Amino acid sequence: MSKPYVIGMDMGGTNTVFGIVDARGQVIASDSIKTKKHAKFDDYIADLHQAVMRLLEANDAVDKIKGIGIGAPNGNYYTGEIVGAPNLPWGPVVPLAETVSRVFNGIPVAVTNDANAAALGEMTYGAARGMKDFIMITLGTGVGSGIVVNGQLVYGHDGFAGELGHVIMKRNNGRVCGCGRTGCLEAYCSATGVARTAREFLEVRTEPSLLRNLDIEGITSKDVYDAAIAGDKIAKDIFEYTGTILGEAMADMTAFSSPQAFILFGGLTKSGDLLMKPLKEAYDKNVLPIFKGKAKILLSELKESDAAVLGASALGWEAKYRYETPGVHLTTENQTAAPEA
Amino acid sequence: MSKPYVIGMDMGGTNTVFGIVDARGQVIASDSIKTKKHAKFDDYIADLHQAVMRLLEANDAVDKIKGIGIGAPNGNYYTGEIVGAPNLPWGPVVPLAETVSRVFNGIPVAVTNDANAAALGEMTYGAARGMKDFIMITLGTGVGSGIVVNGQLVYGHDGFAGELGHVIMKRNNGRVCGCGRTGCLEAYCSATGVARTAREFLEVRTEPSLLRNLDIEGITSKDVYDAAIAGDKIAKDIFEYTGTILGEAMADMTAFSSPQAFILFGGLTKSGDLLMKPLKEAYDKNVLPIFKGKAKILLSELKESDAAVLGASALGWEAKYRYETPGVHLTTENQTAAPEA
Repeated sequence: MSKPYVIGMDMGGTNTVFGIVDARGQVIASDSIKTKKHAKFDDYIADLHQAVMRLLEANDAVDKIKGIGIGAPNGNYYTGEIVGAPNLPWGPVVPLAETVSRVFNGIPVAVTNDANAAALGEMTYGAARGMKDFIMITLGTGVGSGIVVNGQLVYGHDGFAGELGHVIMKRNNGRVCGCGRTGCLEAYCSATGVARTAREFLEVRTEPSLLRNLDIEGITSKDVYDAAIAGDKIAKDIFEYTGTILGEAMADMTAFSSPQAFILFGGLTKSGDLLMKPLKEAYDKNVLPIFKGKAKILLSELKESDAAVLGASALGWEAKYRYETPGVHLTTENQTAAPEA
Repeated sequence: MSKPYVIGMDMGGTNTVFGIVDARGQVIASDSIKTKKHAKFDDYIADLHQAVMRLLEANDAVDKIKGIGIGAPNGNYYTGEIVGAPNLPWGPVVPLAETVSRVFNGIPVAVTNDANAAALGEMTYGAARGMKDFIMITLGTGVGSGIVVNGQLVYGHDGFAGELGHVIMKRNNGRVCGCGRTGCLEAYCSATGVARTAREFLEVRTEPSLLRNLDIEGITSKDVYDAAIAGDKIAKDIFEYTGTILGEAMADMTAFSSPQAFILFGGLTKSGDLLMKPLKEAYDKNVLPIFKGKAKILLSELKESDAAVLGASALGWEAKYRYETPGVHLTTENQTAAPEA
């Protein structure tokens, strides 16, 4: 019997969410564990394994899993490792696919980064269904991207392609970015970038603003949104500034892969036209004439809570990496997912 | 009998060069005609057809052509058209593949732009043999690019992807570019960009320079090269400036597709370390840490005279577009290349 489910896992710095997903993209059941509370990777994996097995047993799915797809920060599709993830405590290189496949008795595992997983989710179940060329941009704490060309994710030579949050938007006097360089897109157009812009604008400008009532150091992009909705001029200008830089960056991305669409995802997209209007204006103004009016700029169609798990699960169907227990050569599909219980 | 040759054509604004190429990438014979002297496209095609047939007959190759590959400015792989090429006089849209296939009695034709053809040439016969992810950059009158991802050229949704000469390198007070916008890479790092930099530097700076002996308006990148080789400080600074901007641009390109290598091609690459040293320094300084030290920066291995024809010919093997004479439905390979003579 061919196995009807995959597991999608979204490993974030704070939580790891996982779900059992069927071939139509229905999340049958899901659960989560804390990521960071485990100082040791092995403890994290033991906890994850236990929680997943509990979910599988409760849903009569123990021996029905075809593969496991994992979206993880700095996850590498080719090696199955997490390499140099700043928000995870387990050292510079974490052998994620190998370890997960081992504890799940050889179920095939595939790993990619979270933005690539989101792109797969949109392509399989969301706004990019049927598209062969699109660019996914995730606007969260950072700016991530997943690029699809000819219907395939762009992994690049080393598996780390698609770091569009780190193209340089200000070559002079740019903001310091988490990557150690200056002027990156992410330093301006992430949720934290919006908060930085707010602090800058409030310092440089003198007009009154609702934002001045808040603890300046603690301002969030949500605060800026609330103030903008209430008509605050500085708050609206902050979104104008953010959207303009993102639109300029996207115009350059089009010169690269001429996508059918950009799909935007993440908390910042909830700001709607506050962000999208200046973004689209800057895009139209900056894109090469031959591309004008072609690429759609869309918002994700997936529920934010489901999107990451769905995206990772899409990778699970084609997962090939399979841990082979020493002495036990796993050759056939049936052998690989023997239930533990 | 399967046909042993293809024809590669490199259509430039001045000359159209074409050659008969075998499966090992040997140019059996080649010739050229003038491009621009034909005010009418039909006259150009008639001249081209006659010249190619003459070459085929002289080489006993009339019925041995499997396909024709054409690299043309703004050539579109999907439609086989030339769209909006500024240096060709035949109107906004030229049905190139259809017309060529028609006059050659239905031989399959494929069209792409010149930089994509160069990338194919490097991948098939040159410095990128065996590479699945690389970026070709052509430094000529303009800056062109051909991007290969997963072993395939990136055409994008509309067939016009890979316009990396038009990413914006100076967002404020950038030079006007031929595309109508300002600050494009091409306005700085093409041969004409180098000449513009020379004029700027000579105007702004006051030191003596060998370049001041020349007609300032007529300065070429070759003049700058000669002066730099002779030890001229301003001339060396011009290459420093050019290489730095190109290295910065390439660092951003790496964030996109993380190529195994960049392959540089065109007249400017003859300046050697004058260009390559600042280029590599700027690349290393600007590339995201995770990519540091990974991508090779190589020069084309193809003879400049052969490269364009070879690249276009590589496309000829897989050409699919085939003109079907009204009333004559060409279905099999043997029917498609009936000799004219």
